[in-house]
Amino acid sequence: MNLKNDRSGYECWLRYSYIDDDISRDAYLKRCSRIALIGESALIESARAELKLALTSMLGAKPLEIGISEDGPAIVAGTFDSLQGLGLGSFVEAADIAELGNEGYIVLASEDGRVYLLAETDKGVLYAVFHLIRMMQTGEDIETASVREFPRNSLRMINHWDNMDGSIERGYAGRSIFYRDSRFIEDLSRVRDYARLLASGGINAVSINNVNVHVQESKLITEEFLPDVAKVADIFRGYGIRLYLSVNFASPIEIGGLETADPLVPEVRRWWSGAAKEIYRHIPDFGGFVVKADSEFRPGPFTYGRNHADGANMLAEALEPYGGEVIWRCFVYNCLQDWRDRSTDRARAAYDHFMPLDGTFRDNVLLQIKNGPMDFQVREPVSPLLGGLTRTNQLLELQITQEYTGQQRHLCYLVPQWKEILEFDTYAQGEHSTVSEVASGRLFGRKRGGLAAVGNIGDDMNWTGHILAQANWYGYARLTWNPCLSSEQISREWIRMTFGQDMGTEGIILKMLSDSHRIYEAYTAPLGVGWMVNPGHHYGPNVDGYEYSKWGTYHYADRYGIGVDRTVRSGTGYAGQYHSPQSDLYESPERCPDELLLFFHHVSYTHVLKSGKTVIQHIYDSHFNGADQAVDLVAQWDSIKEKIDEGIYLQVRERLLHQAEHAGEWRDIVNTYFYRKSGIADDYDRLIY
Amino acid sequence: MNLKNDRSGYECWLRYSYIDDDISRDAYLKRCSRIALIGESALIESARAELKLALTSMLGAKPLEIGISEDGPAIVAGTFDSLQGLGLGSFVEAADIAELGNEGYIVLASEDGRVYLLAETDKGVLYAVFHLIRMMQTGEDIETASVREFPRNSLRMINHWDNMDGSIERGYAGRSIFYRDSRFIEDLSRVRDYARLLASGGINAVSINNVNVHVQESKLITEEFLPDVAKVADIFRGYGIRLYLSVNFASPIEIGGLETADPLVPEVRRWWSGAAKEIYRHIPDFGGFVVKADSEFRPGPFTYGRNHADGANMLAEALEPYGGEVIWRCFVYNCLQDWRDRSTDRARAAYDHFMPLDGTFRDNVLLQIKNGPMDFQVREPVSPLLGGLTRTNQLLELQITQEYTGQQRHLCYLVPQWKEILEFDTYAQGEHSTVSEVASGRLFGRKRGGLAAVGNIGDDMNWTGHILAQANWYGYARLTWNPCLSSEQISREWIRMTFGQDMGTEGIILKMLSDSHRIYEAYTAPLGVGWMVNPGHHYGPNVDGYEYSKWGTYHYADRYGIGVDRTVRSGTGYAGQYHSPQSDLYESPERCPDELLLFFHHVSYTHVLKSGKTVIQHIYDSHFNGADQAVDLVAQWDSIKEKIDEGIYLQVRERLLHQAEHAGEWRDIVNTYFYRKSGIADDYDRLIY
Repeated sequence: MNLKNDRSGYECWLRYSYIDDDISRDAYLKRCSRIALIGESALIESARAELKLALTSMLGAKPLEIGISEDGPAIVAGTFDSLQGLGLGSFVEAADIAELGNEGYIVLASEDGRVYLLAETDKGVLYAVFHLIRMMQTGEDIETASVREFPRNSLRMINHWDNMDGSIERGYAGRSIFYRDSRFIEDLSRVRDYARLLASGGINAVSINNVNVHVQESKLITEEFLPDVAKVADIFRGYGIRLYLSVNFASPIEIGGLETADPLVPEVRRWWSGAAKEIYRHIPDFGGFVVKADSEFRPGPFTYGRNHADGANMLAEALEPYGGEVIWRCFVYNCLQDWRDRSTDRARAAYDHFMPLDGTFRDNVLLQIKNGPMDFQVREPVSPLLGGLTRTNQLLELQITQEYTGQQRHLCYLVPQWKEILEFDTYAQGEHSTVSEVASGRLFGRKRGGLAAVGNIGDDMNWTGHILAQANWYGYARLTWNPCLSSEQISREWIRMTFGQDMGTEGIILKMLSDSHRIYEAYTAPLGVGWMVNPGHHYGPNVDGYEYSKWGTYHYADRYGIGVDRTVRSGTGYAGQYHSPQSDLYESPERCPDELLLFFHHVSYTHVLKSGKTVIQHIYDSHFNGADQAVDLVAQWDSIKEKIDEGIYLQVRERLLHQAEHAGEWRDIVNTYFYRKSGIADDYDRLIY
Repeated sequence: MNLKNDRSGYECWLRYSYIDDDISRDAYLKRCSRIALIGESALIESARAELKLALTSMLGAKPLEIGISEDGPAIVAGTFDSLQGLGLGSFVEAADIAELGNEGYIVLASEDGRVYLLAETDKGVLYAVFHLIRMMQTGEDIETASVREFPRNSLRMINHWDNMDGSIERGYAGRSIFYRDSRFIEDLSRVRDYARLLASGGINAVSINNVNVHVQESKLITEEFLPDVAKVADIFRGYGIRLYLSVNFASPIEIGGLETADPLVPEVRRWWSGAAKEIYRHIPDFGGFVVKADSEFRPGPFTYGRNHADGANMLAEALEPYGGEVIWRCFVYNCLQDWRDRSTDRARAAYDHFMPLDGTFRDNVLLQIKNGPMDFQVREPVSPLLGGLTRTNQLLELQITQEYTGQQRHLCYLVPQWKEILEFDTYAQGEHSTVSEVASGRLFGRKRGGLAAVGNIGDDMNWTGHILAQANWYGYARLTWNPCLSSEQISREWIRMTFGQDMGTEGIILKMLSDSHRIYEAYTAPLGVGWMVNPGHHYGPNVDGYEYSKWGTYHYADRYGIGVDRTVRSGTGYAGQYHSPQSDLYESPERCPDELLLFFHHVSYTHVLKSGKTVIQHIYDSHFNGADQAVDLVAQWDSIKEKIDEGIYLQVRERLLHQAEHAGEWRDIVNTYFYRKSGIADDYDRLIY
């Protein structure tokens, strides 16, 4: 909150703009001019500070703090325990309270003019405060408030890929807010604001260093840096967020001086136990380890002929006495593939590696599974490992940072994509076995589960580079809390909180957000085939960019057709990794959804899609239309120019202009590539080079 | 000579191995056990040191220095002036001496057992010493020596693209031998050895910093660095080499504090005059400036609406009082081209920019013209600017460093390519108007002219990374002296000097060198089309790597055909920049040489070449054969394993193995690309993916 009156975008959705409308403001003032928060914990302090800030700013008057015993209209916040004896029993039944758990809460307006914010824990009270504030930001009536909320996922996490030199792997919004020049940044006020923003959306876990753990970052779990890590953990703790660290599997060698990191060697196990003990001495509620092992040249148990369960369980054993968890990534594949070899299929890799280990992981291990089998493309099928595993804790991994989706220079609102993923039916236990149910753990009766995602923030003044990319951050947080929220609902909340309540503005931005993923998909790689980007940085079109590489990411386009045959019948067999009927759907070129056709099948350019178009005509049409729509985004934004703070208007406009131009580059390169290769003219004779 | 007995390749062709053969050694000893060098200059000192080192090392006995008046067998070296009165008139006629000029020399065995090394200048004497040594290294008889030599080019230059941070742009053999950490390296002994090697080949000019002149390097012409530059110049002077610097056209702004670098503003002209005065105060024989202006984002006269003659002449005027030269590069083109625009042709650029200025450059300006119109591809036509200009000094620019020709990991002996360029007939003044005659200045009666080339050395122990790449360095130097030397003659000299005299070894290495350029060409981009490399670093195959870029380097391959139409009739008109009959030859797809077909014409894959093959079959055949030949290079090298020092054998073998593997990658990617695009099967059903 350093920059209260700044209009750079720093405040994101916690802008707390003054409520101009007298009627609304008066209605809120009636109940909100006095507040009573019970408790002294850091969480209650956070709640109190936030509530006072928000009310003062939105209502133009500082609320009066009163004692709990004073009568009359007020916001009264506290745990059920602390408020016992106030006669709340009449509207809070015991059964309901149990269901809320230790993060849920109630927001309840009573007839005597009070608004009660009640929870089992102080953390729930903090969430309730953010809920009440959101209601006021979005113009909801609080007179009749009767809200019961609890999170659908116990783990709601953001992963940072920050390096201690200050760089962020796949970061598109400046440098790290945690590190600079191989040390922690001393002034942690930005971290505090970050924690507020996270808590307002319900995030309860962060890992603060890159999963590719380099030399310096390996030392985060040592005495050299633990005091600094603890300071950051303190801040997050005040907002109900547990801190995790990514660790280097080879730490026993690299920082422990041992000769091996073999997970079955007692000396190694002792080393990790010792390390855990040290960590918990500094951070008693430390969340645990995030581990990328045996992946893209990172060390792991394979080095010692051990499997991933051996590796994960060893770490889990070390953390178990303290209540810590191991989050073990399943992004394991052969990244030295020969492009000539069509039998190896990177898409199969996670399933092939981890399915045989199902049931062998300790209870405090969660396998973190990327949403798709490849790597965060704009369109992929859902990973068959989700719901393939039945006896293992699963954590769905999403990517908020827009590595393959325009790098926060293109507008690409990802909530619609995430909703599709969460609602995908794995059929693991028959119908309605959605990814959402798998990830939460409910489907298989597991206590641990949830979502993790790679964050998209950096030290850019507006956090995310593209201000509209804040919506992805916000939307992700909201979905972790409640995957049932619709994309539209989340968007409307975010727009009102960020830009205020104006129906016209809201409609335009809602449309821009809602269309953006489809637009981006239209002018980039077609029909689920993916990967037509420049190697390394992954920005901009390059149809053959990965075609002759070692990365296992090919489209096999020739003069007749394109796509990867992943069927059981004639291809790599990947389609068979799904439960029926999904496996049957994907196996069939006729039934496979158009948008994934080239992911599962190699077809001719004249293959007719369900849409009635040929593949080649679809490529042309989608690229011409997508690029046109990108241009139109600028016009849409310009149409609300008067309603937007000038600084924010200009920042977004500059990015939209770049996107429009760059979408034209995508259109022309992709269309030209396929026209030259197929020789088939566009039905509408549009300009192809 | 720091590493006299090292067998790492450090000594290059000045290894001076002991002559094992008794008869030969005795024959040399007869005349070479005593030496008399007349003079005290640094050049004579260099000659003396070199002669003593070589004789001692090759003959196993330190030669005795005698006075000029002592009788009997001896090597007697000095200028004609210094040896007057010795009665040389009988075999040196006055007319001959005049023709030798100030760099020529005579090596003459007399009947009284003496070998005379005579020249007009001390520099000529040094060259004569190196000549005599070379005769002994290559096993020539000196009993009957009667050599008259003078250089065909007055300027024989190597350009270094070294940056002061120690990096070398397009360097593939380590870091700079001049700079480290933004300063000069204090120990200049390696520079001295470098100067020896250059002088032994006849190089008489070096520029020691990158033509892309960055902030630090801009200050080389200031008091901050001139004392250091002068130390380097001192060393080179002792070997007859003048030092040049690349300068930043915007220096008056960047280091002078002026507000403009407009070449017509008196203040700017005065600034450059002052700078020149300072330079010559430190280095009285400073060679001059090398300038890359208005090229690839470098500043230049275009900024001020001036032309290149304005820019070059301003600098020339500043240097003229001191005898300095301006070497102005013609590598000027639009590097922000739209790939969609087929009317702009980068190949035309140098001619279009500079032809209108012919005759307007001052006499101490040389235009440095790259051999081809694009950029040092393995195959390009000769630049039509060479011989297009008739009233301007021209300097042919070659590239020794193998930027596009395998980066010194692939063997690619460039002397055959350079010979073709030098012998290319421009028809500027009718038949026999070769590039060689144009560059030397003789064709148009100009005094200034010659060759410049980008060097291929760094601080790798063996100087060039690939030891066999030393042959390119040596060969270039020899060609600057005498472009009429055949590739075979140069190769044999280099092999004997480097590996000793063994007929078998010589035959194998000669074959490897001679075939290597054709092999490299065979498995890379076909038929002169060029540019199928990874962008940026330019290594390895990427058929579409530059196809949709801004660099003006396209092949336009589609499913029917490939190539760039540069004809006058239907293309960019580039072919019309040549004199007839070359222009007619290139204009006609039937008459155009096969190896340049795709440079000048867009043809179908089924177009039949003069070879009788179709274009597509040529692509397949050349790639299969080229890759096979690359494999065979390893076998050839292995066949002489016993004859090569082990260290050198292993170093070269490692590179040849990599080349063989990488050539396979080239073969498979290029063939697959064209097979997928054309759909035409290989006549021999070989494996294409």
